[in-house]
Amino acid sequence: MWAGGGAVGGPLLTDLYQFSMAGAYWRAGRHREPAEFELFFRRCPFQGGFALAAGLDACLAFLRAFRFSPADIEYLESVLPVTTEKAFFDYLRTVDASEVSISSVPEGSVVFSRVPIFQVKGPLLVVQLLETTLLCLVNYASLVATNAARFRLKAGPDKKLMEMGLRRAQGPDGGLSASKYSYVGGFDFTSNVLAGQLYGIPVRGTVAHSYVSSFTSLAEVNPRVLRPLSGGEPVDFPALVEAWLSKVCQLLRVPLARVNRGEQAAFVSYAITFPHNFQGLLDTYCVLRSGLPNFCAVALALNELGYRAIGVRLDSGDLARQSVEIRQAFRTCSTHFQVPWFERVPIAVSNDVSESSLEELAQEVKMASAFVGRRGGGPCSSRAFAAAHLGKGTGFPCMDLMSLEDELPPRAGEEAEVRLLGRGKESRKVTPAAVEILHRLYLRDGQVCQALPSLEEIKKHAQASVRKLNPAHKRLQDPEAYQVAVTQKLHALLTDLQRDGQ
Amino acid sequence: MWAGGGAVGGPLLTDLYQFSMAGAYWRAGRHREPAEFELFFRRCPFQGGFALAAGLDACLAFLRAFRFSPADIEYLESVLPVTTEKAFFDYLRTVDASEVSISSVPEGSVVFSRVPIFQVKGPLLVVQLLETTLLCLVNYASLVATNAARFRLKAGPDKKLMEMGLRRAQGPDGGLSASKYSYVGGFDFTSNVLAGQLYGIPVRGTVAHSYVSSFTSLAEVNPRVLRPLSGGEPVDFPALVEAWLSKVCQLLRVPLARVNRGEQAAFVSYAITFPHNFQGLLDTYCVLRSGLPNFCAVALALNELGYRAIGVRLDSGDLARQSVEIRQAFRTCSTHFQVPWFERVPIAVSNDVSESSLEELAQEVKMASAFVGRRGGGPCSSRAFAAAHLGKGTGFPCMDLMSLEDELPPRAGEEAEVRLLGRGKESRKVTPAAVEILHRLYLRDGQVCQALPSLEEIKKHAQASVRKLNPAHKRLQDPEAYQVAVTQKLHALLTDLQRDGQ
Repeated sequence: MWAGGGAVGGPLLTDLYQFSMAGAYWRAGRHREPAEFELFFRRCPFQGGFALAAGLDACLAFLRAFRFSPADIEYLESVLPVTTEKAFFDYLRTVDASEVSISSVPEGSVVFSRVPIFQVKGPLLVVQLLETTLLCLVNYASLVATNAARFRLKAGPDKKLMEMGLRRAQGPDGGLSASKYSYVGGFDFTSNVLAGQLYGIPVRGTVAHSYVSSFTSLAEVNPRVLRPLSGGEPVDFPALVEAWLSKVCQLLRVPLARVNRGEQAAFVSYAITFPHNFQGLLDTYCVLRSGLPNFCAVALALNELGYRAIGVRLDSGDLARQSVEIRQAFRTCSTHFQVPWFERVPIAVSNDVSESSLEELAQEVKMASAFVGRRGGGPCSSRAFAAAHLGKGTGFPCMDLMSLEDELPPRAGEEAEVRLLGRGKESRKVTPAAVEILHRLYLRDGQVCQALPSLEEIKKHAQASVRKLNPAHKRLQDPEAYQVAVTQKLHALLTDLQRDGQ
Repeated sequence: MWAGGGAVGGPLLTDLYQFSMAGAYWRAGRHREPAEFELFFRRCPFQGGFALAAGLDACLAFLRAFRFSPADIEYLESVLPVTTEKAFFDYLRTVDASEVSISSVPEGSVVFSRVPIFQVKGPLLVVQLLETTLLCLVNYASLVATNAARFRLKAGPDKKLMEMGLRRAQGPDGGLSASKYSYVGGFDFTSNVLAGQLYGIPVRGTVAHSYVSSFTSLAEVNPRVLRPLSGGEPVDFPALVEAWLSKVCQLLRVPLARVNRGEQAAFVSYAITFPHNFQGLLDTYCVLRSGLPNFCAVALALNELGYRAIGVRLDSGDLARQSVEIRQAFRTCSTHFQVPWFERVPIAVSNDVSESSLEELAQEVKMASAFVGRRGGGPCSSRAFAAAHLGKGTGFPCMDLMSLEDELPPRAGEEAEVRLLGRGKESRKVTPAAVEILHRLYLRDGQVCQALPSLEEIKKHAQASVRKLNPAHKRLQDPEAYQVAVTQKLHALLTDLQRDGQ
């Protein structure tokens, strides 16, 4: 089953041209040349200053299962050019990821544009076949996690955020991935039950408008009694609510005749079924003249029997203005009926949040990959990047420095000469107060060689990672650009490569 | 495996509130009440005048497998309110889609806003549980198919369109669904090999820039010989290309020294491997001074040995302008070297096409569902909609008319009194020249009762469906709005329902 992350897809989940190229490399005897590619993005998504890296776990799962079934080979034989030699397909039968290695930032880390999220090394043919799939698994995961982190920053640390985009997702798996990576990025809940089952994400949800509008009057409510929490005789709950409704309408100056009786019946029926979990969906009819008094009446009746309603939900209209008016009504009821907790009844809003996020998702950044090394046939390992966050005295990281793998990494307190990317031609000297090496080896020759964190741990790491970031870089609009630099030696290599390419 | 369409997901692939509502309906003894919902959209996507309905096949697959496993029940017990009775879960164990019926327009049909794509009928509890999943399966499928149909209209009937969005999709399944439904909407190929294997969609692809840049000189080419198509001695192919390159550069007035030798080696090596399938990716270095002469040299050398190159691809820059210059160069070579087919070498462009479509996808229409009927407890069947395209003498359908299921359907040549939706309060008389009933019963009591078309047939139906549409409605910008009307009887019912809702 694809399950957006815990997922394992087959090796055919890639673009056909990867196989044409593999065939050409094989024919030229180059298939086992050492090769590597780096996965990075060119601009931060959402016009922001940072991104969260996600999808590593899904990539590792994909790699562990990477091999061709007889049916895969048969299909490839039917679509590759007829001149493709049989021996190439025989070779593909032997291919797996047992010579592939991956270094990556830990999943959930803050990353910046142009700094690789991960590096894949292995035989040219295999690495080529992996490119599309790894891009696919990391691209969407990172975008969703980044988007969620931005919502979390906007909402502040205390507000609860719930993802409920399944019905508008790119199919079932798009929805599952969205649930998973929204959670990583800082959401608290999902409405998607399967995501809850597969990933352990807390699920939430009560009723839809269709439930509310499926009732027309209190006569339809059945059963009609509710036992107080502390025990004792069952109470005629519709009658109790009816009594409360008169008091509430009088207090809030709402004409009793305007209150929708179907809505009242729906609330009453739901509260009898789930007295600990009553949430009022207020906007099926009129929020202030019907949804609100009905909620207050049911919640106060529940309160009389010892139960607390869990809150209200608004799904349309001017959410901010309505929230203020609702809060005011809760205060009035709290004081008048002497029910202190009532002034703090949670107000949930659900509206186009997911659409505006979808809209942003579309202005997405292309995740790109660059094959480096192999030019001229030298050994590849010396061409790989290493990267580190450099910190200043402020405690915030202030620059990412990429170096060649065979250079000594930067060290705290030691001066280094660097070139800032995209800032002119001058080199410049920096002396970091702290150095954090970004990439770790996760896969060595096809074997996972690092304990993999749980989803909960990834989420915590993401939150910590965002917290450590200088507020100037995490502003949602017009953030200050984070500095990315390369060592003099890497700069020289890049200049060479560019010259070759002219 | 989720496979976007042929897919089967489990019954937990839905929002939690569907289960809360199911629990409340069950507790109130309403779970077996007959219910139905209609799936429709409020506005056509992409500011267009029509949409293509897709996803029915995936919905039917989902319904056929709809039942709860012991693990599903156990998970639900852990997340629903603690007061939920055990008997509710026992009931869920017995639930399946054996009492569900679906009427739908055939997959691939043109549909308009507010006219239901399909209607789902069955016991209230089951129908409620299905809502999110069916929306998820139809929403994205229809958007992608509609988007593809718009590209097809824009490109005209002859140009080839290829989908290659896997690396930017919402995970593996988002990519597979995109391949499948782009094909339905009018695309010819996909790059996604798994989509080819699963759905039989033709796959295409040759090389990426990384392949081209992995070579530096002709010395790296191995093997170096190619046998003529008609047989005979193998030829030193790099030498033959080298000779052609001089002639081409002279003819096109390109300095030989500016031609990139790595690109030349990549083209040569690929052509030796796949002489029937050589495509030149022209924009790794300079299109006009390197990619183009290198392509011409290799293609003309292949031609000398009896092979035809399949074309060129441009992936960056001003695609329109470059295409014109390339076509001109092909004509020049064709005439000068007397190779008639050369002036018609196909030019493929691949650039932000998929992004602009993604961008549009984000401004997507919400697919909505409306539960109708059941108000007041009457039998539901009389509340269902029927809908028909009405045609005028022009041969184009010009109005969709929705009526109640127990009304006689409109008939060609017979006058009917209708109310146009969104056009004032007057009724109006129409006499259709032709009537096409839109919905067919696909699922009766859980059993598929209609032969299901193949993907190829769905694609053909979609193309025919778009062809039949009046050009005024399929204009990509500012299309003329298609008329949607209801019968007097349905109008009266809707007015009643609205009044109840006040």
